[in-house]
Amino acid sequence: MQYVSFKAADGTETWGVSIDGTVHDLGPSGKNLAATTRDAIEKGIFGTQLDLSGAPTIAEADIDFLPSVTNPGKIICIGVNYLAHQEESGKTGQTAPTVFTRFADSQMGHLAPAVKPTTTTKFDYEGEMALVISKEAFHVEKEDAWDHIAGYACYNDFSVRDWQKAASQWIPGKNFPGTGGFGPYLVPAADLGDITTAVLETRVNGEVRQQAPVANLVFDIPTLINYVTGFTKLNPGDVIVTGTPGGVGLFYGPDGLINHGDVVEVEITGLGILRNTVADEASLLAGAQATAGASA
Amino acid sequence: MQYVSFKAADGTETWGVSIDGTVHDLGPSGKNLAATTRDAIEKGIFGTQLDLSGAPTIAEADIDFLPSVTNPGKIICIGVNYLAHQEESGKTGQTAPTVFTRFADSQMGHLAPAVKPTTTTKFDYEGEMALVISKEAFHVEKEDAWDHIAGYACYNDFSVRDWQKAASQWIPGKNFPGTGGFGPYLVPAADLGDITTAVLETRVNGEVRQQAPVANLVFDIPTLINYVTGFTKLNPGDVIVTGTPGGVGLFYGPDGLINHGDVVEVEITGLGILRNTVADEASLLAGAQATAGASA
Repeated sequence: MQYVSFKAADGTETWGVSIDGTVHDLGPSGKNLAATTRDAIEKGIFGTQLDLSGAPTIAEADIDFLPSVTNPGKIICIGVNYLAHQEESGKTGQTAPTVFTRFADSQMGHLAPAVKPTTTTKFDYEGEMALVISKEAFHVEKEDAWDHIAGYACYNDFSVRDWQKAASQWIPGKNFPGTGGFGPYLVPAADLGDITTAVLETRVNGEVRQQAPVANLVFDIPTLINYVTGFTKLNPGDVIVTGTPGGVGLFYGPDGLINHGDVVEVEITGLGILRNTVADEASLLAGAQATAGASA
Repeated sequence: MQYVSFKAADGTETWGVSIDGTVHDLGPSGKNLAATTRDAIEKGIFGTQLDLSGAPTIAEADIDFLPSVTNPGKIICIGVNYLAHQEESGKTGQTAPTVFTRFADSQMGHLAPAVKPTTTTKFDYEGEMALVISKEAFHVEKEDAWDHIAGYACYNDFSVRDWQKAASQWIPGKNFPGTGGFGPYLVPAADLGDITTAVLETRVNGEVRQQAPVANLVFDIPTLINYVTGFTKLNPGDVIVTGTPGGVGLFYGPDGLINHGDVVEVEITGLGILRNTVADEASLLAGAQATAGASA
């Protein structure tokens, strides 16, 4: 089952399931089984057999995607967690996971612009797989980790490299608005086979830049959940973004970084394709002004 | 005026103002002018002349302090922002602020235990001054920064050094539960003179470990607000913890770090004294079990 968060025609934030190109609205603008995907997880109905009867439908092609979880309490990002990326960035020999965070308001959905800030010359992609937590998780043993995962989705941890590397801590370069692509679908763990056999691929304007099986994670999923819940409590709807393979733009060559108009796709077996087109922040501001002018 | 967040006798989270040792309850268990200090800031009543008539009172000595803001949307922490701390940690020459984050559930109030995790041998204090945001702040110019500050409070950014330094990013060592001391009072900016003349002092068992005027910040308050709002939007109740002076335990000598029973105080001119006593996590668990056993 493919869960989607989206904005209804009247602007309401809602969610539903997408089947064969048709979205069944199960959120506030529809059948209202729960307010959000996070709420559906908290209520224990996410991933269960849902009664779709009576739910309004809309073509998936017509929905305005929001991040798969719009309001996670915690977004935990893992750095340098594929060997090829450790090698290209000169960071092999990691003895513990590298952990940083995103704020929820840095996220956007499938097809929304990836916003390149006016204050950067170094905008980059990082294709990743995200997992979403199903239930309270604190001091979780590795063997119990899988029981705490609601589902998986594609993630693009777009990075503002100059702000990321201006000091030792990366938070500024990882938290600009419109830089955390999350979707299109949140897929229940139970609907997937062994997730570690999935392959992650990132393409820029169709060119493959990153490709690796999730099995290549240096610190695997149970290790990440064990480590993170060793210092903070995770709750339903919280997100762990598991790291990016080799091939990020910064190390890809002189034209590796991305700019206005570049189309970036992250595809993971079973999770669909997350597509975001880079837009200069200034162009969005100009567009907003033009729209305001037109409607004035 | 001294604003306090606290737990009422029945366990309700509430807030009020403390005058001459008496707290006037203005929150849910009292006059209910707003739900929390953050809500009071959002409603625009924080720092204004409040009508205390009819508010239930309780001796300040009897309240169970909570963090000055219990539910900030964003807690932005600044690292290595006093020259003496840059020098002791070998990090001089910073050209941009070092920014990391805390989750709200890592915070505790005045007099609550500072929890030393079972999984560390390196627990440390960092006395700091925190500022709280008054209104939406995005791309704020330095000259406008002061207009976005609701108030100030003492903060102790207790740090789990081994987890902080296990990888390049510090998040794990800065987010254990019971490690972000915040209070006792949130004092409106308008009630204070020039905050940069305030002096910050941290004491361990009465011994002065850190002492510096806030004027010694390398990146000053307007610069921090300008920089942070250059990559993320701040909202009412959000917190910036401005950095710690020289004299943290890690560099203080063989007995610099803190352990079970150590009393740590952070005092800032005009903001009162934040006092937390270190408690081994295991002792708290044992205490909880003993209590559970006694009441069983």
